Amino acid sequence: MPGTQLTKGGPLDLCRTSTSQSPSTQNTKELQPLMANPVCEATEQKKQQPQGPERPNSHQKFKAKLMQWVSYVAGDMAPFGEWMKGQFILLQILDWVLRGAAQVMFVNNPLSGLIIFAGLILQNRWWALNGFVGTLFATISALIIGQNRGAIANGLYGYNGILVGLLMAVFSNAGDWYWWLLLPNIFMSMACPIVSSALASINSRWDLPVFTLPFNILVCLHMVATGHYNHHFPQVLFQPRTSMHNLTWSELDYPKLFRSIPVGIGQVYGCDNAWTGGIFMIALFISSPITFAHATIGSAVGMVSGLALAAPFQNIYFGLWGYNCVLACIAIGGMFYALTWQTHLLAVACAFFCAYLGSAIANVMSTFGLPACTWPFCLSALTFLLITTEIKNIYKLPLAKVNYPEKNLIYFWKMKKEERIAKQMKEQEKDIASQQMKESIIMAANEMKAHQLLDVCTVDVLKEESTQNRSDRKSEATELDLTQL
Amino acid sequence: MPGTQLTKGGPLDLCRTSTSQSPSTQNTKELQPLMANPVCEATEQKKQQPQGPERPNSHQKFKAKLMQWVSYVAGDMAPFGEWMKGQFILLQILDWVLRGAAQVMFVNNPLSGLIIFAGLILQNRWWALNGFVGTLFATISALIIGQNRGAIANGLYGYNGILVGLLMAVFSNAGDWYWWLLLPNIFMSMACPIVSSALASINSRWDLPVFTLPFNILVCLHMVATGHYNHHFPQVLFQPRTSMHNLTWSELDYPKLFRSIPVGIGQVYGCDNAWTGGIFMIALFISSPITFAHATIGSAVGMVSGLALAAPFQNIYFGLWGYNCVLACIAIGGMFYALTWQTHLLAVACAFFCAYLGSAIANVMSTFGLPACTWPFCLSALTFLLITTEIKNIYKLPLAKVNYPEKNLIYFWKMKKEERIAKQMKEQEKDIASQQMKESIIMAANEMKAHQLLDVCTVDVLKEESTQNRSDRKSEATELDLTQL
Amino acid sequence: MPGTQLTKGGPLDLCRTSTSQSPSTQNTKELQPLMANPVCEATEQKKQQPQGPERPNSHQKFKAKLMQWVSYVAGDMAPFGEWMKGQFILLQILDWVLRGAAQVMFVNNPLSGLIIFAGLILQNRWWALNGFVGTLFATISALIIGQNRGAIANGLYGYNGILVGLLMAVFSNAGDWYWWLLLPNIFMSMACPIVSSALASINSRWDLPVFTLPFNILVCLHMVATGHYNHHFPQVLFQPRTSMHNLTWSELDYPKLFRSIPVGIGQVYGCDNAWTGGIFMIALFISSPITFAHATIGSAVGMVSGLALAAPFQNIYFGLWGYNCVLACIAIGGMFYALTWQTHLLAVACAFFCAYLGSAIANVMSTFGLPACTWPFCLSALTFLLITTEIKNIYKLPLAKVNYPEKNLIYFWKMKKEERIAKQMKEQEKDIASQQMKESIIMAANEMKAHQLLDVCTVDVLKEESTQNRSDRKSEATELDLTQL
Repeated sequence: MPGTQLTKGGPLDLCRTSTSQSPSTQNTKELQPLMANPVCEATEQKKQQPQGPERPNSHQKFKAKLMQWVSYVAGDMAPFGEWMKGQFILLQILDWVLRGAAQVMFVNNPLSGLIIFAGLILQNRWWALNGFVGTLFATISALIIGQNRGAIANGLYGYNGILVGLLMAVFSNAGDWYWWLLLPNIFMSMACPIVSSALASINSRWDLPVFTLPFNILVCLHMVATGHYNHHFPQVLFQPRTSMHNLTWSELDYPKLFRSIPVGIGQVYGCDNAWTGGIFMIALFISSPITFAHATIGSAVGMVSGLALAAPFQNIYFGLWGYNCVLACIAIGGMFYALTWQTHLLAVACAFFCAYLGSAIANVMSTFGLPACTWPFCLSALTFLLITTEIKNIYKLPLAKVNYPEKNLIYFWKMKKEERIAKQMKEQEKDIASQQMKESIIMAANEMKAHQLLDVCTVDVLKEESTQNRSDRKSEATELDLTQL
Repeated sequence: MPGTQLTKGGPLDLCRTSTSQSPSTQNTKELQPLMANPVCEATEQKKQQPQGPERPNSHQKFKAKLMQWVSYVAGDMAPFGEWMKGQFILLQILDWVLRGAAQVMFVNNPLSGLIIFAGLILQNRWWALNGFVGTLFATISALIIGQNRGAIANGLYGYNGILVGLLMAVFSNAGDWYWWLLLPNIFMSMACPIVSSALASINSRWDLPVFTLPFNILVCLHMVATGHYNHHFPQVLFQPRTSMHNLTWSELDYPKLFRSIPVGIGQVYGCDNAWTGGIFMIALFISSPITFAHATIGSAVGMVSGLALAAPFQNIYFGLWGYNCVLACIAIGGMFYALTWQTHLLAVACAFFCAYLGSAIANVMSTFGLPACTWPFCLSALTFLLITTEIKNIYKLPLAKVNYPEKNLIYFWKMKKEERIAKQMKEQEKDIASQQMKESIIMAANEMKAHQLLDVCTVDVLKEESTQNRSDRKSEATELDLTQL
Repeated sequence: MPGTQLTKGGPLDLCRTSTSQSPSTQNTKELQPLMANPVCEATEQKKQQPQGPERPNSHQKFKAKLMQWVSYVAGDMAPFGEWMKGQFILLQILDWVLRGAAQVMFVNNPLSGLIIFAGLILQNRWWALNGFVGTLFATISALIIGQNRGAIANGLYGYNGILVGLLMAVFSNAGDWYWWLLLPNIFMSMACPIVSSALASINSRWDLPVFTLPFNILVCLHMVATGHYNHHFPQVLFQPRTSMHNLTWSELDYPKLFRSIPVGIGQVYGCDNAWTGGIFMIALFISSPITFAHATIGSAVGMVSGLALAAPFQNIYFGLWGYNCVLACIAIGGMFYALTWQTHLLAVACAFFCAYLGSAIANVMSTFGLPACTWPFCLSALTFLLITTEIKNIYKLPLAKVNYPEKNLIYFWKMKKEERIAKQMKEQEKDIASQQMKESIIMAANEMKAHQLLDVCTVDVLKEESTQNRSDRKSEATELDLTQL
């Protein structure tokens, strides 16, 4: 089985070795991460997969090799993450920062992070720098205040940092390369893990993630604390609408409307460049095609909603109707719910709801001179994750089991299969138990010595049969046998 | 006992039959409803009531018959609800929609719902249509997303729908019969059960109902998302007060002031017609006189508060100071607390607090061009339901036991009685146990063989007597006997 | 041992006597107070302290006497509180009111309360009267609605009342000695315990105090319900900033800047008089030097933050940047966390965060014509108390154990010591157990009869040794012995 051998000789083996070397990995599993994912399990699964074909031909060999190479760059790049654990701390932090950059889109993949940074540099180098500083200091701060190392390594303390850094630069009215901005940037980035930890204490009661709430809170905090009329850190002016805008449907520009889909994805990071948005889409596709699909659907839904609610066309072209829907659609469609057609519909519904909410929040926030940030996404996704339902196919994953959508799906299928088997087993047991019970009753009836005992037993057995349909019958049957001895 | 026979032959018997026919009723009881009420229990209680008089004379016969007929239309009309379970689905949905319409006032009664719809038609037919559409689609949506059937049947997913439908029509600036409005109306109504379910997940941690929070959230969402300056769905303009209004006390119009009490009740559904308000009062009285009384008190308290806080007279006449107090006073006065004189005072205090809060919220919301909706009621009632106190007579009913005030009161009395009996039983047992213990000690002391064992036992017993006053003594006494054998 | 005798003859003994006299004290301990502190424990500790020096010379005698007298006025004045329990109810209420006045700064000390009232009278007699009325009625209301007597006696229902009373007077636009103001003052003060109790129901789920949230809610409620343009109760006008203010750094007035530190402490009670602030500092120092130190640090941090964010100098001089930081710094630095150098740094970080938040909230609230109140303190302190961390030295005290910082520290040290001893004990036991186990294995190996049983046992033992490192080993060892018999 060459495939298996290759796997064992590859980085997967490094994973196992490094696990045994570093005792810290065992500790991190015990802790309760923000939305952590026991990494080594994944690799074990992958190891077992290629064992299927007993004697592979060249085509199968090639396919196995391809799958293996895909597993190195796709998903959460778990083998790479494990390999990183033995490396120099600065390299590790770089890995965490890259994962943090991608975690904004729920992607736990350093390669995607790298591509996203490339997209940011294409958009604006000053913004990219601020984003990097934000991620870096948020990660460092999480280390200082003693947060869970596993969660930090998955970039869960970085993604709010990159957004804080980026958006503070985007909304600053002082122009690019205003170096003083790095001071509040670092302060706010370092406050991210504090707010994250505090919010996680609340949200964990309902097994909910914190999403980008820390970013929303901190950027709004900074913007409203300083405001447009500030000497040190002036902000871009947002004002509430006070008159009817022009809306001529004949002026609708279809190419721009189509372009608003990648732009909407770009706006998650505050970027209005369609190419940047396209690069982000590649980053998503590498890690998880399901995420990519839902991001696209979300952006389209946002655009349609904007038209339905008679929004100014400029806002739609600029992607302002898309980015919240992108995030909401990803979150509900496969990330925190296992992907079924019901949850797919729920994700689309959530995107529509989010677009509505986005318009509402943008109007409310403009009263305070603030942008909508990603409040609409956070609130709509939290609402849809709080739903309780009797539909079995809408399955919310426990937060500790959340990974990328494809893996969540495998987990869901596995769980369903186990449930089915457990059910069958139980039924078989029940049948056997009732069979045994009947036999023992007949046997007992034949014996004439213990007829007093029998009466009591039979009555008990019949009574229990009618009331406790769900409980296990086997133990009772054996009990019955014991009493007859 | 003709009364009993008639009861058995009447719709109550249908209830039992339909329960055994439909297995779905058993399932619904296991689920955790929003503020559900196991319906069949109620009917069983009623069955037992008329058994009291052994040989009734004609007066008693008439009284029993009257009581029985009253039980068909008053309260939650449980027999009718049970009978409905065997009917065609569309008829059932109609029942649920009517109950939903009445549930705005915490009334679970289809007849009240019908009367309320009559009042709405009297006010404005377009509004009534929108209200009906809202209730219908909210109920359908609850069925689609798999909510608890028992809660749906009690109208608990409809009442937010009717408010959403009505108030979206009331606050629309596009005039009546603007048919496009039905689109956002249906969308928002269908979002009601989603928001309800999400909020219930949060509020159930404190055993609190969701009240009309989903309606508040969704109507505010729609209004602020579109706003006054919107091409498709313009809203009525609300603006904050920016100057002193005239207030000449001699101009106070007493008939109008008096009329503001029914108008305040009408404003719960956004209606300013005093006759409509009067019709709503009849609907309340049919189901529950306690609810009716508290609604009237609440509206009066609101009017007084408006005068105390120097509100413009027009607002008071228009019932804007009343409707929140009406709801708050009903909720605290007998609905979620068992009615005692303490909770009655608490309900009045809550109404005053709610009026104050109403003024505050109206001013805050006007900044965003929004009306106060029923936020003041929700927040004040939730606050007063969260109070913990050492006063025994302020008893908050468990949410699953909440019904109409009269039945809540019976539940409360029954529970108190049981508690008293349990206490007496316990005390008697304690006396017997301590008597037995003493006897056994004396007996043991007479025996000279086991004197070493005795020392240990006595010391133990005396020690336990002084420390564990609350635990049951009987078992210990028997243990003592066993050791001496 | 004269010192010990004197202690026994002093008021400390009265404490014990009164405890046995009044059975109500035992009840209060079972109840769950807002942030209560079992008072008698404290006195017991103090009793044990002076027993240390066996044969005191005159210097030690003097020191012991001094310490004893300090214990009468410093800390929470527990002996005085116990002595009060036997007094006339009006005197008791006075004690509770004075403690309530000081509890704003987390000080549970009637002498500090008295000094604070002196400071208030120096500032403005009308305000002081309103503050007194507020505290009094809040305390009475807490008694009426059946709140925990222990919490009331510690002033935990009074501190929101004094703030409500004071600030309603401060922000009233009707001028001093407008007697009608006492009506809403009494109403709002009496609503304090209701809101406190409701919020405590929520916050207790996370073991968090309610801080001054009831005050914030109720004062904002009153101010926004009436507003600037009200005939009965007009409010001071707050307006959002709409233009750039002048900021000439050369105009910075250093004496005023320095004076802003006591003024910042004074602003906790809405006082802008530096002498009043100084008097408050004395009141803090008497009860707890740690509290005093953190208050000073907090005020300084606020001033620095104001300069960093380019705030108008007048606001900084007026102490508006200080008072929230004062409270936040006290709360985190030793009050709810045990004071270590880590929590001290956390307190400073929290003060900076609070200053930022203060500016943000002031800007947001001004949109509604409201001041910032102490929202920034509440939100930042709650955020920092919700943090979960792996650092052992950041220890959040259970709410029931919170007292003044010095006593919290003693509790923390004691707990750490006990933990260390328990750990050592456990390790010793483990060693003994493993020793016994090995011996028994060797013994068993010598026996040749039971060699089949032995194989199974040894394998089991070794397996368990490698997996269950944390479980107790002793019981297994005895089990092993039993099987070999």
